Amino acid sequence: MIVEPGELLAAIDSPNDLKKLSPDQLVQLSQELRQFIIDSVSIYGGHFGASLGVVELTVALHYVFNTPYDQLVWDVGHQAYGHKILTGRRDRFPTNRRYNGMSGFPKRSESEYDAFGVGHSSTSIGAALGMAVASDYKGEFDRQHIAVIGDGAMTAGMAFEALNHAGVEKSNLLVILNDNCMSIDPNVGALKEYLTDITTSRTYNKVRDELWNVLGKLSKFGPNPQQIARRVEQAMKATLLKQGNLFEALNFRYFGPVDGHDVQHLATILNDLKSIPGPKLLHCVTVKGKGYALAEKDQTLWHAPGLFDKVTGEIHKKTYDKPQAPKYQDVFGETLVELAEQNDKIMGVTPAMPSGSSLNIMMKAMPDRAFDVGIAEQHAVTFSAGLATQGLIPFCNIYSSFMQRAYDQVVHDVALQNLHVVFCLDRAGFAGADGPTHHGCYDLAYMRCIPNMVVSAPMNEEELRNLMYTATLPENAGAFSIRYPRGEGVMPEWRKPLKKLTIGTGRVVREGEGVAVLSIGHIGNYAVKATQKLAAEGLNPGHYDMRFCKPLDEEMLHNIARQYKAIVTVEDGCLPGGFGAAVLEFLADHGYSLPVKRLGIPDRIVEHGTQDELYKECGFDADGIAAALREMAGKVVAKAPVETVLL
Amino acid sequence: MIVEPGELLAAIDSPNDLKKLSPDQLVQLSQELRQFIIDSVSIYGGHFGASLGVVELTVALHYVFNTPYDQLVWDVGHQAYGHKILTGRRDRFPTNRRYNGMSGFPKRSESEYDAFGVGHSSTSIGAALGMAVASDYKGEFDRQHIAVIGDGAMTAGMAFEALNHAGVEKSNLLVILNDNCMSIDPNVGALKEYLTDITTSRTYNKVRDELWNVLGKLSKFGPNPQQIARRVEQAMKATLLKQGNLFEALNFRYFGPVDGHDVQHLATILNDLKSIPGPKLLHCVTVKGKGYALAEKDQTLWHAPGLFDKVTGEIHKKTYDKPQAPKYQDVFGETLVELAEQNDKIMGVTPAMPSGSSLNIMMKAMPDRAFDVGIAEQHAVTFSAGLATQGLIPFCNIYSSFMQRAYDQVVHDVALQNLHVVFCLDRAGFAGADGPTHHGCYDLAYMRCIPNMVVSAPMNEEELRNLMYTATLPENAGAFSIRYPRGEGVMPEWRKPLKKLTIGTGRVVREGEGVAVLSIGHIGNYAVKATQKLAAEGLNPGHYDMRFCKPLDEEMLHNIARQYKAIVTVEDGCLPGGFGAAVLEFLADHGYSLPVKRLGIPDRIVEHGTQDELYKECGFDADGIAAALREMAGKVVAKAPVETVLL
Repeated sequence: MIVEPGELLAAIDSPNDLKKLSPDQLVQLSQELRQFIIDSVSIYGGHFGASLGVVELTVALHYVFNTPYDQLVWDVGHQAYGHKILTGRRDRFPTNRRYNGMSGFPKRSESEYDAFGVGHSSTSIGAALGMAVASDYKGEFDRQHIAVIGDGAMTAGMAFEALNHAGVEKSNLLVILNDNCMSIDPNVGALKEYLTDITTSRTYNKVRDELWNVLGKLSKFGPNPQQIARRVEQAMKATLLKQGNLFEALNFRYFGPVDGHDVQHLATILNDLKSIPGPKLLHCVTVKGKGYALAEKDQTLWHAPGLFDKVTGEIHKKTYDKPQAPKYQDVFGETLVELAEQNDKIMGVTPAMPSGSSLNIMMKAMPDRAFDVGIAEQHAVTFSAGLATQGLIPFCNIYSSFMQRAYDQVVHDVALQNLHVVFCLDRAGFAGADGPTHHGCYDLAYMRCIPNMVVSAPMNEEELRNLMYTATLPENAGAFSIRYPRGEGVMPEWRKPLKKLTIGTGRVVREGEGVAVLSIGHIGNYAVKATQKLAAEGLNPGHYDMRFCKPLDEEMLHNIARQYKAIVTVEDGCLPGGFGAAVLEFLADHGYSLPVKRLGIPDRIVEHGTQDELYKECGFDADGIAAALREMAGKVVAKAPVETVLL
Repeated sequence: MIVEPGELLAAIDSPNDLKKLSPDQLVQLSQELRQFIIDSVSIYGGHFGASLGVVELTVALHYVFNTPYDQLVWDVGHQAYGHKILTGRRDRFPTNRRYNGMSGFPKRSESEYDAFGVGHSSTSIGAALGMAVASDYKGEFDRQHIAVIGDGAMTAGMAFEALNHAGVEKSNLLVILNDNCMSIDPNVGALKEYLTDITTSRTYNKVRDELWNVLGKLSKFGPNPQQIARRVEQAMKATLLKQGNLFEALNFRYFGPVDGHDVQHLATILNDLKSIPGPKLLHCVTVKGKGYALAEKDQTLWHAPGLFDKVTGEIHKKTYDKPQAPKYQDVFGETLVELAEQNDKIMGVTPAMPSGSSLNIMMKAMPDRAFDVGIAEQHAVTFSAGLATQGLIPFCNIYSSFMQRAYDQVVHDVALQNLHVVFCLDRAGFAGADGPTHHGCYDLAYMRCIPNMVVSAPMNEEELRNLMYTATLPENAGAFSIRYPRGEGVMPEWRKPLKKLTIGTGRVVREGEGVAVLSIGHIGNYAVKATQKLAAEGLNPGHYDMRFCKPLDEEMLHNIARQYKAIVTVEDGCLPGGFGAAVLEFLADHGYSLPVKRLGIPDRIVEHGTQDELYKECGFDADGIAAALREMAGKVVAKAPVETVLL
């Protein structure tokens, strides 16, 4: 192991070891833990700023509470590296986020200390409340249940739903609000302003000053308690109606704000809170990236910086001999601005992913036309629907796995009314190192079943641009979705002129005979490699980039069904109900009976790894596709041609 | 037309006519509108209490605002009957909720006054904010945007997400909080308690009393303004930290509470609010069912009472000659209690649908084990996941179309961790008169693509009981879903002993030859009628109740594929990606090529009507299934047997 833990940290294999330290030693341990995270992430990569920000909180929590009997739920989980290191996973840390290695998020199957698996935001309060209610039911009244949630995650509706419920249960629930004013990008919204207000006591100071002012003036004319009281009452009434504590309004006892980097003070407070029953909230103010100056300064960049030199802070960038293809994200971001410059109806909406989605390009260029609405996917979609009712064309960019959180809004608010909203589903298919919580496996299936919804996926950058352009045209004024993966495309020279596509038309990549591969989206590039392999073997497979999963290119499919003897479908998405299923439905509905082999994400949870590792594992990398083509070609050669059964 | 409007109401064909009235006449108009609703609903049916509660608000809104230029979004829409009657739909009102008639909810395609289509709750603030931001962008600064939302709907997370966003936009948004302490059932949660608190000034009165008390005591010893001020300051600080206005905390200007039944006062206030820019909230206190004594008294019963005698208040009940089958809802409710009596791990969870789902039976019998969490589907699922981590077995009952709102929580919090949560999807398939917002079309598709998820549907009451029992067994400790429709089953004698089923096994309903129908769920009863028809014609179709959409009964399917020459699939769910698609996937994966015709909900929006009307329209009533069987039988008879292509 390259990274050596400090002296105290080296002796901690579980929270029991931590509890042996004296309160004085917690400061040193925190320093060692912070250094270990810096050392490790600089070499092995991973999320960075979030874990640095909660080093002291993590130490204090495991020092004070009796984990895993007491249940600790980390919201999202980017910040749980310290927790993992203190709970027996220090030596496994170099495998973090690697294929077959440790998960980058808390995960129940990985450790009994991970009370709840996370990845998506804002689940912690509801889950911890469920645990707390279960403890009540079982008579385990001494058991503590703690949710640690950021101010960003607190903006998501489900956090509020859970607070609303917790406020009327009398269960032992401690919510720790980790207030650092950040999501991955800076946090936004009224709640953030409110938290800043109570942290700085802005409103309270103002009211106090006014009050002293009033009383001071009165005293000049001789004090009259009744008169004073009446004035004070008026001032108080105004105050009560204007400002107060949002969490107390929801029946939580509110404590804080406290300095989230004073580990000894935290330990004292947490210990005190143990004896206070019912729902309570501790407001901790922390700094994301704390203790690493560069990370404190540019918190978005250092959320997950990649590998870096921990001394100089230089982030290692790969160097290349030739021009590289851009990320799909950047093609999206730049093309959206290009389109919006030509069409003043176009708007941009993101739920807290400006940098991840590259909508920040539009937010910078056209601040009045691009909106970060906070971690609030549901609202992002319905807000977009509202914009669309007014003749605007919102591009609502949400990661595929996060779009699951706005599914009803897509169905009920957009598709049902067939409003002109363009959904860009980023991180579609395997997300890579973030793993199963972030894989965008299901969107082809869950979007394809919605009426009025166009479901498309570009095979390369030019196609993404053309789909985006096509989606803005008046003749396509309805619900339109475009999915694309995380990361680089294939076209270094991607700034091609925009071309209008006809909805529901595919593209011939390669004419062939015998067997054809039908692909949707970026994974088609692997099919290209596969057909090249087979061509080298003397076979002549066809390849069709279907481009639209819905509506399908029926003319093309009729031709394929007549021309070929077998079909392989490939998608970077789940097999049940996905693109391959759509092809089967077409074939059955039109009475074709040629054999079809479907490649895609199997019906099981696929863990983390690089995208290429996962494609290979699931058999739809270039070799897997080639093998499937070979298999199907072998079968159809071995038997008489299959005729259409019904026509 | 049987129902005659009053004199003033008869003259109102649009809000322009309303605006001609003097403020004095608004009271009479409100009375007439209320009477028209009572008269109409008693004869034609529909939702009742909600619209009575907002009669005055509706009149005042259309009197004051310049609709449809000013945009009025009704949340959920149960309460919009008055709105519809005043906006040119008075004479169409008898067609309300009938096949080819008026929708029971606001609907953009029905009227320009319906600014946003609704049905599901809590969308209004986000949608109206989208409209408001669009108006800003277009420079229409005089335009008003109003969301009318109940205190029940306010508990859903997406309402909070929208408030959080609206609080930092400076757009012209008026949220009217229609506070009647009700959803369909009584509203629950901390927010409700908070609203009661501010309405009754409970906290404020308490603080004021304390303050006077303090000042009174001080005056006995001679007043000292500095000392008074210091004491007052302490009292204020405590107050500030304890209680205040939740909406002001989110940057909304808060007005109210006001009496929502004083139409003239409402008109005055609404007029004043027009000139106040930015986000603002008017807290209106109303009574659900106002003006009809019985409806005020039993608000849940009178939410949608069915037809009734408006004079006596007697609700008309159908009478029957012979015992009727129970509702699936009641079978669920009673069976859950029966199971819970035998298994102390079983818990019940509903998001605000105790009476609709019949979970109220368990809530009454076992109040500590059944939870109404408010209109909060996301939280309901993650809370259930939390319970399941502690070894409990929550039955989380959510209507199919509302489960769309918790899709991510089903994927991310339950299925990914394979926690033992049983989802009961009520109102699966066509919901009937509630129409497209409430049809449960998509759940077979969106559930089937999730790994670890068992997807099942009972064909009758006994099967529902057996599935529920089976879902509780330790060997099936994972994510388990059971879908069933709204309304009656088929078994008057339904209390059969509980039997364990084997996951992924179907049931032979009828052995046959040539062509087989494969059904899933209650719609299988229509397939029974269809096969009876065909048997009478001399054909001999087979019928298999597959029971599990996932995992499929593979052994049964192999036998069917070998035994029959063609298949018809039937489901009360969407065709893309649904049960029929699952059968196609199985056949393709195993190299079968027999022809399949899929019956189910087509890939378009199907409007409202009775379930039977909609089955017929979509071709899967008994006649439709019979026709499909006949068609497929004719085809296979007319040609040589189709052999399996690949094996």
